[in-house]
Amino acid sequence: MIGTKLSLNAELMLRQIRDLGAIGHDASSGGRTRIALTDDEKAGRDLLMKWMHELDLEVRVDRMGNIFGILHAASADGDNKPLMMGSHIDTVRNAGALDGCYGVLAGLAVIRAFRLADVTPLHAIVVGAFTNEEGVRYQPDMMGSLVYAGGLDVQVALDTIGIDGTRLGDELVRIGYAGDLEPGAIVPHEYIELHIEQGPLLEAEGKLIGVVENLQGISWQKVTVHGTANHAGTTPTRLRHDAGYVAAASIAYMREHVAGSGTATTLATAGSLAFEPNVINVIPRKATFTVDIRDPDEQQLQAAEKRFAFFLGAIAEKEGVKIETERLVRFEPVKFDIGLCNRIEAAAMTRGLSTMRMTSGAGHDAQMIARIAPSAMIFVPSRGGISHNPREHTDDEQLIKGAQVLLDVVQDCLNSR
Amino acid sequence: MIGTKLSLNAELMLRQIRDLGAIGHDASSGGRTRIALTDDEKAGRDLLMKWMHELDLEVRVDRMGNIFGILHAASADGDNKPLMMGSHIDTVRNAGALDGCYGVLAGLAVIRAFRLADVTPLHAIVVGAFTNEEGVRYQPDMMGSLVYAGGLDVQVALDTIGIDGTRLGDELVRIGYAGDLEPGAIVPHEYIELHIEQGPLLEAEGKLIGVVENLQGISWQKVTVHGTANHAGTTPTRLRHDAGYVAAASIAYMREHVAGSGTATTLATAGSLAFEPNVINVIPRKATFTVDIRDPDEQQLQAAEKRFAFFLGAIAEKEGVKIETERLVRFEPVKFDIGLCNRIEAAAMTRGLSTMRMTSGAGHDAQMIARIAPSAMIFVPSRGGISHNPREHTDDEQLIKGAQVLLDVVQDCLNSR
Repeated sequence: MIGTKLSLNAELMLRQIRDLGAIGHDASSGGRTRIALTDDEKAGRDLLMKWMHELDLEVRVDRMGNIFGILHAASADGDNKPLMMGSHIDTVRNAGALDGCYGVLAGLAVIRAFRLADVTPLHAIVVGAFTNEEGVRYQPDMMGSLVYAGGLDVQVALDTIGIDGTRLGDELVRIGYAGDLEPGAIVPHEYIELHIEQGPLLEAEGKLIGVVENLQGISWQKVTVHGTANHAGTTPTRLRHDAGYVAAASIAYMREHVAGSGTATTLATAGSLAFEPNVINVIPRKATFTVDIRDPDEQQLQAAEKRFAFFLGAIAEKEGVKIETERLVRFEPVKFDIGLCNRIEAAAMTRGLSTMRMTSGAGHDAQMIARIAPSAMIFVPSRGGISHNPREHTDDEQLIKGAQVLLDVVQDCLNSR
Repeated sequence: MIGTKLSLNAELMLRQIRDLGAIGHDASSGGRTRIALTDDEKAGRDLLMKWMHELDLEVRVDRMGNIFGILHAASADGDNKPLMMGSHIDTVRNAGALDGCYGVLAGLAVIRAFRLADVTPLHAIVVGAFTNEEGVRYQPDMMGSLVYAGGLDVQVALDTIGIDGTRLGDELVRIGYAGDLEPGAIVPHEYIELHIEQGPLLEAEGKLIGVVENLQGISWQKVTVHGTANHAGTTPTRLRHDAGYVAAASIAYMREHVAGSGTATTLATAGSLAFEPNVINVIPRKATFTVDIRDPDEQQLQAAEKRFAFFLGAIAEKEGVKIETERLVRFEPVKFDIGLCNRIEAAAMTRGLSTMRMTSGAGHDAQMIARIAPSAMIFVPSRGGISHNPREHTDDEQLIKGAQVLLDVVQDCLNSR
């Protein structure tokens, strides 16, 4: 293979991104919704499987529904420890077309470049699409890759009950993606994930390729405040145990005192919230909200968690409410493989593309696979930093350049073994 | 009638309260839900109609679905300007059995006392059950009595679209309670509403009968915050337009700076709140919440509204979000008829029951009927002040004493014309 000039079919890659993005599309919002293991997500999986078969890949599905398209090596020996690319094709509600899908379909484009040049690699190449990266319906997120890397027992994962009361394992069977491969059976030699940044930094700095060195730690909690329902017009302020107020004050505190200001790195978000009984003239009996705190430094992350927990304790006592917290997700910050990062930077520079070393703010399957193989990520810019939104956008030219860097890095890795 | 001794069938009144409270009952929560014009509320109406017919009353339903049971006077002349008692039989979600129903069924008990003594009154007596007092499904609340008193056009009310997308007029037809009486056709000589306090003051003061002199002004708004959805892990704090945070900070401000502290009378409550897209790792694009501000003094109420509006303007500018406010309900404070209040106090004192002059914190149909007739209210204690809750409770003995005072006041009014 060394010396063979491989080239991408960029047009076909972009078309596949559009075609996959049409599944679950809602014309009124402009977004698409393919939440893990729903009918629309099954349709997305079916399309990916079809494309993998068109490339004459061996397609394997594991017990978690993770899908792998395998381009075998020239020799059986070369099939050991394949190079793996990948990401996910599930989405949040009302999402853009690129998040996850870009990495999977760029991986297929890399394999297609081998096919087009009629080159069989010395080592196998695998493209993986991991189940339930977004964690909208079943928690934790990044579940497929977490199980794959041995971080969560497959049976526990299959028994997960979703927000709609369904069992993950049953839904996998229902949509026909409960495979037979044991998760983790294919241990990669290295894992490379190409992804849109989902943040504003590359655009703000005028850089094209993000070399992702590390990934923030993530702390997710569910907070439930138990107060007392009462009539909004007759209960003096001093006698209230207002679960809604306590939730609101906690969320305001999070932003004002848990999130870092200025150049501090801690991020804090309350993305979801519900009041009960949620009636205009009734003091909320119960308020439930989620907390998402992130920091690239484990000490900082712990300090933020502590500040928030202290506030909750103090306000619970002051307002006479009971507060329960449930840890949903906790991942320590991840450092990616420095050798792979250097290869990515070198490949981009060889093509004359500007680069920037950076931290991933979002969670990614790569952080899980990093547990079992050297891993790294390549970012391309997200216009306005907008993510998880129909207005998510990366220019076609940028998508193509990111995929070319991926192709170059793959060749570099295969040639360097 | 003068001199005839009338007495209540207290046991039957209590049984009817229990029987009506069994409709829409949920065994797991202990509460019942009969939201206006639902199937369960229709079942409650049917039961009330049956009881009115058992008392051989003329039953009339007006175009708003307000139900009136009329005990005619001995002469046609005596049917002019009847004495009216009343309240409502719709409930909030997961309610107690007393709110509203007590006033209606005590009214029936008063009429039953006339029937039992075989006394035909010199002036007609009417018991009214007004449609949609709670305002859970259709706003504004107290709608049936508001229309009845001429404060809202009946056609506008019938065209109201509910939170479930239904049209009020269509639902009235569907459940068979779109009557033919014109709202306001029966103008009462006076209106007396017996109700549980729904607040803690009578209990705290150790008094049995509340003589309600006035009623707080009520200001309801819906506030919608339009921000920008973005990834919770990648968007620096300084670049966020977090609709959820803005809503939370506004609700915290309401409690801390709009509601009065200490002995100040302003109450402020955010009873309902919703985030969009309401996903753990997405900064909310939109947050919608309701604001309930009350004060017995119109100037204080206006001052509270202004403080809140000023805060919304300031935080919208600071956070780069757009905030829309919609006025849902605005009622000025109401003063009840001093002559009726004196009669209530005198009746209670004659029976040796302790009394207290007070302000109603909750809205009531009486505040609407006060626009067309001298009106007043009688309160009995609510244990712990708990209202709009399955744990709403008043002792049977207290319920009976309240109804006896009502009976006495009715006789006093009829005898004094």
